[in-house]
Amino acid sequence: MTDTKENSIGFVKTQTLRVVEKDNPLTLECGKSLGPIDVAYETYGRIDANGDNVILICHALSGNAHVAGLHTPNDRKPGWWDNMVGPGKGIDTNKYFVICSNFLGGCSGTTGPSSLNHKTGKPYGLGFPIITVADMVRVQKLLLDKLGVKKLLAVMGGSIGGMQVLQWAILYPDFVRAAIPIATTSHLSAQSIAFDAVGRNAILADPNFAAGQYSKQPAEGLGIARMIGHITYLSEESMRAKFGRKLRSAENYMYDFDSEFAVETYLDYQGQSFAERFDANSYLYITRASDYFDLVKDYGSLEKAFADVKSRFFVVSLSSDWLFTPLQSKEIVEALAANRKDVSYCNIASPYGHDAFLLEVEALGQFLCCFLKAAYDPKNNKPCSCYTRQSRGVSFLDEQPHRARVDYGLIESLIASNSSVLDVGCGQGELLANLLRDKNIKGEGIELEQNLVLDCICRRIPVIQQDVERGLNFYADKSFDYVILSQTVQTLKNPEKALLELLRIGKKVIVSFPNFAHWRCRLQMALFGKAPVTGQLPFEWYNSPNLHFFTLKDFDRFCDKLGVRIESKIAFSTRPLKFAPNLRAEQAVYVIKKD
Amino acid sequence: MTDTKENSIGFVKTQTLRVVEKDNPLTLECGKSLGPIDVAYETYGRIDANGDNVILICHALSGNAHVAGLHTPNDRKPGWWDNMVGPGKGIDTNKYFVICSNFLGGCSGTTGPSSLNHKTGKPYGLGFPIITVADMVRVQKLLLDKLGVKKLLAVMGGSIGGMQVLQWAILYPDFVRAAIPIATTSHLSAQSIAFDAVGRNAILADPNFAAGQYSKQPAEGLGIARMIGHITYLSEESMRAKFGRKLRSAENYMYDFDSEFAVETYLDYQGQSFAERFDANSYLYITRASDYFDLVKDYGSLEKAFADVKSRFFVVSLSSDWLFTPLQSKEIVEALAANRKDVSYCNIASPYGHDAFLLEVEALGQFLCCFLKAAYDPKNNKPCSCYTRQSRGVSFLDEQPHRARVDYGLIESLIASNSSVLDVGCGQGELLANLLRDKNIKGEGIELEQNLVLDCICRRIPVIQQDVERGLNFYADKSFDYVILSQTVQTLKNPEKALLELLRIGKKVIVSFPNFAHWRCRLQMALFGKAPVTGQLPFEWYNSPNLHFFTLKDFDRFCDKLGVRIESKIAFSTRPLKFAPNLRAEQAVYVIKKD
Repeated sequence: MTDTKENSIGFVKTQTLRVVEKDNPLTLECGKSLGPIDVAYETYGRIDANGDNVILICHALSGNAHVAGLHTPNDRKPGWWDNMVGPGKGIDTNKYFVICSNFLGGCSGTTGPSSLNHKTGKPYGLGFPIITVADMVRVQKLLLDKLGVKKLLAVMGGSIGGMQVLQWAILYPDFVRAAIPIATTSHLSAQSIAFDAVGRNAILADPNFAAGQYSKQPAEGLGIARMIGHITYLSEESMRAKFGRKLRSAENYMYDFDSEFAVETYLDYQGQSFAERFDANSYLYITRASDYFDLVKDYGSLEKAFADVKSRFFVVSLSSDWLFTPLQSKEIVEALAANRKDVSYCNIASPYGHDAFLLEVEALGQFLCCFLKAAYDPKNNKPCSCYTRQSRGVSFLDEQPHRARVDYGLIESLIASNSSVLDVGCGQGELLANLLRDKNIKGEGIELEQNLVLDCICRRIPVIQQDVERGLNFYADKSFDYVILSQTVQTLKNPEKALLELLRIGKKVIVSFPNFAHWRCRLQMALFGKAPVTGQLPFEWYNSPNLHFFTLKDFDRFCDKLGVRIESKIAFSTRPLKFAPNLRAEQAVYVIKKD
Repeated sequence: MTDTKENSIGFVKTQTLRVVEKDNPLTLECGKSLGPIDVAYETYGRIDANGDNVILICHALSGNAHVAGLHTPNDRKPGWWDNMVGPGKGIDTNKYFVICSNFLGGCSGTTGPSSLNHKTGKPYGLGFPIITVADMVRVQKLLLDKLGVKKLLAVMGGSIGGMQVLQWAILYPDFVRAAIPIATTSHLSAQSIAFDAVGRNAILADPNFAAGQYSKQPAEGLGIARMIGHITYLSEESMRAKFGRKLRSAENYMYDFDSEFAVETYLDYQGQSFAERFDANSYLYITRASDYFDLVKDYGSLEKAFADVKSRFFVVSLSSDWLFTPLQSKEIVEALAANRKDVSYCNIASPYGHDAFLLEVEALGQFLCCFLKAAYDPKNNKPCSCYTRQSRGVSFLDEQPHRARVDYGLIESLIASNSSVLDVGCGQGELLANLLRDKNIKGEGIELEQNLVLDCICRRIPVIQQDVERGLNFYADKSFDYVILSQTVQTLKNPEKALLELLRIGKKVIVSFPNFAHWRCRLQMALFGKAPVTGQLPFEWYNSPNLHFFTLKDFDRFCDKLGVRIESKIAFSTRPLKFAPNLRAEQAVYVIKKD
């Protein structure tokens, strides 16, 4: 997945198609109608015989249809996501047929406020009707119909592109097999609306704006809007690393109001170059569409919004994104999970803020590659070939678990075929993969570590990146036949809270843990007066990940005290033990329930 | 500390004094000279016989000299910090003599860009020289000299006011007994400079600005600058709570570009009203002074900047402040602590963002009240009278520790008189207070909980709010004769890391902990196979705050393995035990060291 000339898509061309005729205009959400509508788009790769490999990419505010490749040999820059889309890249154009269109209201070929209004013979300007994200998506659908596309393998996009993805899955549930919203939200926060509003104010206040019928761009206003935008796209951390308090040239202050900090000249440049290539009216319309996007308002609640979606989802946030935050992605994930939809989620660790969806090519590319394969061929459970030691250092293909997991076999034996299973702290997804293969379960995982989440995605297991200690309150009571917590409870800060939560969402909970009353432990404790160190408890007291030590008897007492029913318990070392289990067993597996 | 008419300061008047004459101008940091300079100021309360009770308040960007009370009976609003300053309030004007002056470059009476330039007969406009925070402070000093003030009990202020506080302590170390920088920074981040730059761009781009010689305010530009500022003063959380996605009036969208979200109309109002009362040129000069403020650049490092300060410091940050973040306050605290200055620090929990320094009246008022008393009368160690059950729910005056702390007496006996002591996890400061009283030590505390930090401040003990697990790397090696960690090590996630850190900064470390090998524990473990619950270990395994269990023998092994020398150990239950301590002792105190 390196970005060399060899794996570039090469030369591409933006094409244009009329999707709405003048005489049969499209009625927009605002109630007004619009026509004709032309759509600019690009396609890469070839559609396969069954039309199963079509991916739609939705671009963000300042993007356009030109995702990858070059238009001419003289282009200084390739398309905006060239490092992600191409032969052998994260979105592999050797396999998939990729489409991207400039959205409605844009200024790169699709009908927007800078298009000619056939009624006046002048550009629409502020006479263009207010558009919404749903309008954009409907126009994209008309394009796909014209192109003869019958279904989408996936629709994906970041930022406003991600809003379109959500809207796609809701409006056309049978058309979209997989939805990948990246760094997005189901509704803008007050703070984001505020930033948009200030940017629009700057454009509207520019004397060149001329109520939208400008001949010369309101460059000052648009530049200021873009500067504000740019601050929100970067993180405080990445700005510090990139600029800090560096001065443009001199070592000492100039003592005037010229731009002298490096960050000032950067913003000046961003503002100016944006004003040269983007239309101020489009900026107004697109930010307004983004402000108006609100699935909660439109459908009553996020859960209701997603009630009828049929896509499998992969939701991605970036850890340092403060424009559309990981919390906002989690709201989407939780609403989907509450609806028991097929949803995976990863919060990719990155210092680059919102912009990371364009910059974290390596990590995001691997996730997209694996998830797309799972969507394209869900029955094949061989790990994805991109997933090698070369590309991520280490993987489950060549990594041995550091202790044999005897409990996995036991747990598997306790689970009925065709049941629904949530594995909390599912790690590399080994247990779930076995259950999927042997018992035809409906399996899902919860895992905290990004690398392990990738392992699960690669194994085609739906997985949500989440700390179980933060609760799983988005799952309704008794959502699962089984909830598994294997070799994890002793590492939790608050085992009581976590266990009660699992007992709420699972009809049965299967817990495995090390027995601290094994005779080796007792001996070390009683005779030698030292904290035990054994094969199952190999750590010193001062660096152990195990934060709570307890025994079979303690666990019985816990169940008794909290009204938890023990359905079965298996004490074992290398094999199950009946006699004196609290003394002889190194580990135990319990099946418990609570009404 | 309620805000009723009864405890208002009443009617006050802004006065003006010429501090620099035309013929003897002041040379500014930029190299240019300025004169005459007039300063507008207010004073409240009376100076005491020795002049020991003078407090200087430094205002922030949009503030002025009018801190408290009313100018006329028709005033709609009192001064900007009226809820904090007045009889019986956090800053008690019955006790203290309070001064605040409008800073240089302002537009509320002190000489600034809107003042008449005597050379041109017109307002200075952009002909005003660039000023710095140090210039502002030097002019304040000239005012105090004119007023006959010989020393300051305290200088305090938030935001840019806090920068002035830092500069005061550095420029006039013998003049300032206590410095209270609130919600401030030693240098703006790239992100903050960026926000300032965009605001200035909006002003400069306003056609009314006329290169600074405007007759009509550039209200659009200044309004946009203020809107951006306001977003940074509020937290995302507080904006969500205050506005969310509420619409101004209608239930449904208007589908136009008028302000219709509540947050938009709020910003419009803030922008407009600010443009009516504030001068655009002043905005440019003050934000530039704030961008230029950089103690690291000026003095080589923050440690060097504070090398010669003599004030005691109380640094305050607000937890949700993202303009001048808690991390930036901590940098100040750490540089002071590295210099072994008398510094206390609290990160007040608040959802209100940067604005919280004006809004968290209750919490901040209590801290200021107690800290000012400690500064005014450091020898008196009676807790402050404001500090009662009424005002904060519970206090050490009426709260009994839930277990008798036998170890305190033992630890005290181990510490030499006149030594320096750091108590890590010092709680309410009881042990340090005893040591200060009985052994004349130089004592400091580290504590995580805000209420306990207040307890310590109230007891006149310097205390830094910090999680010991995040490290204490700002202290040089062997900074203290003794570092104490009492009954805490077993609750840490990573005891090894923490202990090694304490051994680095302390010549000796005194650790007390419960002994897990006490015979009661062994008995429960060995015979009954259950995790021990005893008087010293009263918790169940599933809800215990104790995360690591170890014994005297384990601790010996730990010391042995990591090259730690045990200077003495006392095993005890209700009294010290010589025979079979690992079996009989419920607790232990170790004195350890590492070269």
